[in-house]
Formats: sequence, structure tokens, C-alpha cells
Amino acid sequence: MLEKFHVAKKDIVHVEEKRLRTVTKEILMTQGIPEKDAILATDALIKADLRGVESHGVSNMLRAYLGAFKSNSLNPKPNWKIVKETPSCATINSDNGLGIVVAPQAMEIAVEKAKKTGAGIVTMNNCGHLGMLAYHSMIASDNDMIGTTMAACSPRMVPTYSSVRALGTNPISYSAPADKLPDFVFDAAMTSVAGNKIVLASRLNVPLSPGWIADKDGNPIMKEISIDELNHEDESKNLENRYNKGYISSSVDLLPFGGTREIGSHKGYSMAVVVDILAGILNGTRTAPTGEYKNQGHFVAAYDIDAFMDKKEFKELMDRYLQSFLDLPSNSEGKKVVYAGYLENIEEAKRSQSGIPLHKEVVDWFKKISNELNTESL
Amino acid sequence: MLEKFHVAKKDIVHVEEKRLRTVTKEILMTQGIPEKDAILATDALIKADLRGVESHGVSNMLRAYLGAFKSNSLNPKPNWKIVKETPSCATINSDNGLGIVVAPQAMEIAVEKAKKTGAGIVTMNNCGHLGMLAYHSMIASDNDMIGTTMAACSPRMVPTYSSVRALGTNPISYSAPADKLPDFVFDAAMTSVAGNKIVLASRLNVPLSPGWIADKDGNPIMKEISIDELNHEDESKNLENRYNKGYISSSVDLLPFGGTREIGSHKGYSMAVVVDILAGILNGTRTAPTGEYKNQGHFVAAYDIDAFMDKKEFKELMDRYLQSFLDLPSNSEGKKVVYAGYLENIEEAKRSQSGIPLHKEVVDWFKKISNELNTESL
Repeated sequence: MLEKFHVAKKDIVHVEEKRLRTVTKEILMTQGIPEKDAILATDALIKADLRGVESHGVSNMLRAYLGAFKSNSLNPKPNWKIVKETPSCATINSDNGLGIVVAPQAMEIAVEKAKKTGAGIVTMNNCGHLGMLAYHSMIASDNDMIGTTMAACSPRMVPTYSSVRALGTNPISYSAPADKLPDFVFDAAMTSVAGNKIVLASRLNVPLSPGWIADKDGNPIMKEISIDELNHEDESKNLENRYNKGYISSSVDLLPFGGTREIGSHKGYSMAVVVDILAGILNGTRTAPTGEYKNQGHFVAAYDIDAFMDKKEFKELMDRYLQSFLDLPSNSEGKKVVYAGYLENIEEAKRSQSGIPLHKEVVDWFKKISNELNTESL
Repeated sequence: MLEKFHVAKKDIVHVEEKRLRTVTKEILMTQGIPEKDAILATDALIKADLRGVESHGVSNMLRAYLGAFKSNSLNPKPNWKIVKETPSCATINSDNGLGIVVAPQAMEIAVEKAKKTGAGIVTMNNCGHLGMLAYHSMIASDNDMIGTTMAACSPRMVPTYSSVRALGTNPISYSAPADKLPDFVFDAAMTSVAGNKIVLASRLNVPLSPGWIADKDGNPIMKEISIDELNHEDESKNLENRYNKGYISSSVDLLPFGGTREIGSHKGYSMAVVVDILAGILNGTRTAPTGEYKNQGHFVAAYDIDAFMDKKEFKELMDRYLQSFLDLPSNSEGKKVVYAGYLENIEEAKRSQSGIPLHKEVVDWFKKISNELNTESL
């Protein structure tokens, strides 16, 4: 998380992990989700909060999911099934179920296939939100496999040279096990910044960085811009209002990561296309740029390390490799060089002990919703 | 290719494809490469030149390979073999062979495995340069499969917040077939700019863009900088001299794509780590940041579309999808929106007819080397 998104201590309440799990599971079950699925979904949400990925934890996502169930745009009891299968591959029709319920089971199928053939690849159509992608990849790395997860999402990204949005933030995740060091766990949107960060910037009133968003004609904004300036530029993009209305803002056009063509926006754009193909088109999903977009498509894969080399040797090599990044000298900014997953692992250890920090606005929401749904209060 | 790298017409000579193939193959065979391998290597080089990817065609790479054979750092007659195998996976010891000879055969193995199980994944250690990665991915898409290729390379990239280089440019390629439109073919370094572009900038005397390179302390240079300024900053980085000495410059530290942390350099850095893991560590390669780097490692994979959905329907969806990018309105820069592989396909059709444009300096080199090696002249 960038330092600019630091939340003041006085606005934070620490909640015990176990307590948050119970409350979250009960809220989900009021929507008709079977208990075993609610446990799965809760685990995916809480894992994000434990690892410091608040954007994909209970604070933003639980209310988004409740809204989707309320409007019948998500099926609480999906009858998902495999519609095509080979020894290493499968396509799943998710029956409009929540991604954080269907995808962990898809990754378990991939892992089982990988145990037999060396690789397991599962693509899902007609599916809801996937939460923190790393959650699914880590199921593979916990099984001594390399895991990868991708999500083809609704349009937010403006392709290089385009004046309008046409692609999702289309995140990619990879996870690979180490021995003694924390596993390598990468998870990132193919836009410069995740959509939820714009909401966060609005909530905390911090300016947006150069290279994050496009102006109303699709041109990269390469200077720092405040939320006020942005609102002034185009009233329809009034983020403050949109956030206060209670839904996740999707009003800002995001740039591919790289920002401009010269710093590599065409690479971020093309990687987002790769995600659309593997997580979307490969399972028949109607994708964002054609204007036929309806629901998300997802992709998970597991590669068994033992199919390629001795897994003990692999994990020892990973330790040596990852340690070499931690040992690198810092540039003039003076910040420690880390690798993806390292800080998240430290955060998880800490929060398992001291509780999960929630913004007080989120705690208030929990109290209100538990009261409404007649479930146990936080 | 960025417009700044435009070469003046007077410096260009067009050479017929067939002629260039014959001359290139003969030159390679003087190094002890068997004819069938020389044909493979020639095809990979010429395909790059046909598609307008001059950086990885005969101009730069043929002399680099000859230099490597001369110094015995490449084996012209590799006895490469599979050292571990499952129904979907294989690890190859490349016996220090040229990547453009071993990898196409590795991709053929991946394609055969994918025909049986749905997926084929092959990783190679102890290997030489891979040329244009897209060449290998396209073997998969020519078989109605999705192809991907990665190369774990020698250190050039400065990880986010580091003061020194520790990772390769570590390119990634993906290829997926369309029906009537040109296939989607992506191929890019995980640095903002490929290493060979720095040489090109030096040759053409154009300034380097913000976000491309790091200063001597590893900090991102976020302003335009001329080759002269750079040489002035640090005499050891005198690119002009290095180019004139005849070897590919590797003296400049490149930034991960994204440039700075705020525009996403940690994503480019992490994707380069993914490449090191799949193309390197997974086959036991000693990777760049540990200081044990010796030779490249590579990764190829093929996913059979028929394992997931009807391939005819997939290709029709791809046409609709790719066409929607071509139909997007342009932003204020006024440039046409394209997708990866589109312009390269047009270029290939053109150059197959009108010949391959070589810089006159390259033609002179061909004449000189053919004379030295006693092969047919261009």
C-alpha cells in the first residue's frame, strides 16, 4: 500500500480475527448461502484483511456483495458445473455464483489434475467477483505448486491511444512456495492503480498520482490531480458523492500500468488482453470491449513443481533467490527492497495476534447491518 | 516501434527474404551447426525481420551469436535432452545450445502434450538466447492453441527501491489465434524498454525517454536524457564507444516497466520475478540476483483451445473481440488504436513482397563476414 493511503490511528478499531469471521459468515448466510460456501467466502475475505489488502476484505467487498445479492445479480446457491474437461483442463459454468466461492473449488480441481499430469488449468464463465486473487493462487503454493489466477472484469481501462475505456482492471496473480522465507505472492491490477484505490483516495482526500487516470478524452493525466480538481473537470465524475451514495466508484477511466506509451502502457494494455483471453474468451465469456459484457470470467492454474524438479531443491533455491532481493542496497529514496508477498506475510502474522484494523466507519456499518439482518453484532 | 526510432530512407537497403535466408543459414553452418538446426535458427531470425522486430533479427543477433560461438560460450551441436517428464510437463537440459534452436523443439513437445492432456509446459535450463519470443508462442497458436514463452535473462533491471541491477529484462510473450483477423501476438520485456532499444537510440542519436533508465544510484530518471548527457554523467556508460566496439551495450541500468513505484514499477519488477521462477528456478537455473547467473533459462507452454471450448467458436469470438479494439475512437494524440500483433502482421505481408529493409551498415557487415567465412555473399 502506498504511504499516501495511511489512515489516522484515531479512526481505527482493532477486531479479533475469530470474531470477524463469525459475524461475516452469519451475514453471508442470511443471503441464502449454504454454510460451507459461507465459510469459504469468509475465509477469502478475512485472508485479505489479515494480509493488509483491505481493498479486497470485508470493508469494501462485503457490502458490495450484499448489494449484488439484493439486486439478484448474484446467485447465492450456484449449481456450478464442469462443462468441458480433459486430464489437465476444465471449463466451469459458475451459474452466477460468487467468485470467492467457486474459484477456490476450481483451484482444488486444478491441483488434483496437476498431481496426476503435472498441470491443472481451469477457466470459469458466468461468475461473480473473485476477491483477492492471491487467495486462490496460494491454494496451489500451499500444495507445493506454482499457482496463477486471472480475472476478466468490467470495463475500466482505456487502451493505449483510445479515447474511451474498453478493458477491465484485469488483475493477475502468481504464487510460488519458498522454504523458510515467506512465499512469493504477487497480485496486481493491469491498470496503474486498482479501482478501489481511487475510492480510498476520495475517502482520505489525497491527490491522484500522475499516470493513474485519463482525462475525459482518454489522454493520460501526467500531473498530480486532486479529487476536487477532478470533480471540477467533470461533475459526473464526482467521486465524493458516489462514495457517499454507498457504491464503489467506477466513474474514473484508469490507465494501463505504465501510464503512457513511452513508459510501457501498451504492455499493461496487452497483459489485460491476455487476461481477457484466458479468463474470458477461453470459456465463452462475452468480453468488455465488444459491449456485450455481462459477468466476470476467471482463470486458475496450478503447475506441480515435482513435475519439473525436486521440490525440496526448488524451495531452497527460492529462499536463496528471495533473500538476495532483501539483501539489495537501497536507492536514494532509502526504502527497503522487498519482494511481492513479503510485507503481506509480516502483516498477517501481526494481525493474527493483535486483531484486524477496521475503519470506524466500517465498524458502524457492521453494527447497522447486523441489526437489520438480525445477526450477531461485531 | 516508437516513432523516434525511425531510420532515414537513404540508409536502407531492401533484401529479398529468400536470399537473406540462404546467406544466414550458410553463415550459421560455418559454426558447426547441423543444417536442420541452422534452418530452424534462420527461420526464427528472419521471422523477426519480416515482422518488423529488427532488434531480434539478423542485424543485431547474428553477429552476437557468431561472437558467442567464437568465444565458446555457445554449443553449436547441443545434445539437449528431457531430464524430467510427466504427461503435461517436461524439463530440458539444453546443453548450452542456442535458444532459437532448442525452444522451437520444446514448444513442439508442449503442443504434442497439449493434444493429449489439454496443456503442455516445458522449461529449459542451460540455454542460449531465445531471439524473438513471439516466434515460439506462434508455434502454439498456429496449432489452434494459446502459446506463452518467457526468458530468464542476465541482470539489467533495477528492482523497485534498489540501487543496483538484479534482474533480467525477462520478456513475456503470449499468442492466441483469431479467425480472419491477424492473431493476437504479444511479446515484451518487463523493463520499460528493451535493452536493444538503448543501442538503437545511441545509433540514431535520439534521447532516452523519462522512466526508461536509472541513474548511477538506481533512482528512476524521470526526465528526457540525451546520450551525450548520459555519457557526461558517467564515462563508463559511454554508449557510442561501446556500440562502435561492436558489442551490444549492457552498460545502462533499466527500470522495470512502470518506471516509478507510483506508476507501477513494482508490477514490472514482480512480473520479472515470475519469469525468473518459471523460466529459471523451476529448471534449477542459478538466477541473476543471487550473483550465480551463468546462462539463460526458458519457459514455453501451450494450452489447447479444444480442451476448454469449441475452437471455431473461440476464433470467431477472438475476431469480434480484436475488431472492437480496431474500432475504438482515438484520444487527442490521434493515433489508431491497435492490438499486439496487428501491425507486425501487416509488416510481414509487406516485407514478404518487397523485401527486408536492412541498415546499410548491416549489409556491409554481411559482405565482410561472408568474405571472411567464405560463404555466398548477400
